[in-house]
Amino acid sequence: MQLPHGSTKDIAMSNTDEIYGIHAVRAALQNPKRRCQKLFVTKQSLGDIEKALLTNSNHPKPIVVSRHDIDEKLPEHSVHQGVLGYFTPLQTEKFKSWITSIIEEQRPERCSVVLLDQVTDPHNVGAILRSCSAFSVNALIMHERHSCPISPTLTKIAVGAVEHVPIFYVRNISETLDLLQSLSFMRLGLDENGQDINTFKAQNYDYKAIVMGAEGKGLREKTMKYCDQLLSLPTEGPIQSLNVSVAAGVTLYALLKEPSSA
Amino acid sequence: MQLPHGSTKDIAMSNTDEIYGIHAVRAALQNPKRRCQKLFVTKQSLGDIEKALLTNSNHPKPIVVSRHDIDEKLPEHSVHQGVLGYFTPLQTEKFKSWITSIIEEQRPERCSVVLLDQVTDPHNVGAILRSCSAFSVNALIMHERHSCPISPTLTKIAVGAVEHVPIFYVRNISETLDLLQSLSFMRLGLDENGQDINTFKAQNYDYKAIVMGAEGKGLREKTMKYCDQLLSLPTEGPIQSLNVSVAAGVTLYALLKEPSSA
Repeated sequence: MQLPHGSTKDIAMSNTDEIYGIHAVRAALQNPKRRCQKLFVTKQSLGDIEKALLTNSNHPKPIVVSRHDIDEKLPEHSVHQGVLGYFTPLQTEKFKSWITSIIEEQRPERCSVVLLDQVTDPHNVGAILRSCSAFSVNALIMHERHSCPISPTLTKIAVGAVEHVPIFYVRNISETLDLLQSLSFMRLGLDENGQDINTFKAQNYDYKAIVMGAEGKGLREKTMKYCDQLLSLPTEGPIQSLNVSVAAGVTLYALLKEPSSA
Repeated sequence: MQLPHGSTKDIAMSNTDEIYGIHAVRAALQNPKRRCQKLFVTKQSLGDIEKALLTNSNHPKPIVVSRHDIDEKLPEHSVHQGVLGYFTPLQTEKFKSWITSIIEEQRPERCSVVLLDQVTDPHNVGAILRSCSAFSVNALIMHERHSCPISPTLTKIAVGAVEHVPIFYVRNISETLDLLQSLSFMRLGLDENGQDINTFKAQNYDYKAIVMGAEGKGLREKTMKYCDQLLSLPTEGPIQSLNVSVAAGVTLYALLKEPSSA
């Protein structure tokens, strides 16, 4: 492949998603809903994305640059692994029309969504999105203000999950929980005073909305009122709380795994 | 309380643990195995550690400094929350004598240890240690070289778990797994080709050694050979792997929770 050599310096892209890291860029290249506008790669990392480049003949030729050139485009200490791309952003639909059409038209056997109430750290949200993908969650929902945008850091940490799990920003978490109830979702809030998640018969509910609050503070009282059931993780000892992304992973496993024959 | 005002600038402590963040410092102050040598606090954060200071009359009086003074002592972007202490390090025992005396003398009903094989990121190890504490794991074991020291970052991320879960560094992971077998531990390795963890009857084993490898690479073949059983997490889709600290949390929940009556 003949590749243009160049520098990243003259690029100032607006209204594009800046995506870096091998897994994240690879997944973005393979997402038919994205168009890659510019792609910078070090010679060493070319092999890691070559296959993904072939998925769409419209992808631009990667521009080979030095590691240092990419360093200069990104915040300090960004682990870009020699790959940086600029992509058209994902179109975000309205959650209400999206979920309503899925449930009323497709009538899936199972459906699960995760709502994050005031979780703002991109590392945590990125890791949670990755877990959502691994446990086949259908959507991640956040508040349009008290949340975390689909930032380069979130995209990197999610190692490609941004391309697979739709993210919705809603104006009102309570109204969204009302909507989910009207669509027969069981609304499950994580709270330290809830029922032990291990004793909850999750398999009895085909549609689940899993609601989690910020680390430390937990769910807001207001949000709790819109949950049908509060659940807790069976932790103990002097440090009972888990990191919020670990707590989310455990919760998804506990609620979404197939019931064991035990 | 009369407090000396001062600056952090003249302090260069050697052979001490630098601990920052409210939870981490509070736990260190409450740990009778530590001695606090110097403690810097902003006026705003004094209230958060006052109670912990009372646990030991030998604790030094905190030196009230500005947020900026603490910033200067720590790497950029350290989230110190206005608290920085210098403590005598924890004494690390030899794992062999520690575990042998526990099992042979105390004969506990249950015992679980976690071995990390080549997990090196302090954020991940810190979050795993926090989960170990929350799920009552008895010890965390790492290789003495391919691992992560008990660094300020690890200590901060573990929000105090460093004071509650003993960490051991061993020369040889395989020999350690041999030792654990001789003490009747079931050695369980996490591997994507293992049996679904959800179908594994964990409650049949009172002593468990849970072995995890690095993200991406997973367990080394050599280490796998010293496991009695390989287990996998029931993830699916294009991004099946979880962040290693999330995977550890899910594994601990799956193996250490009380069997449900379901």
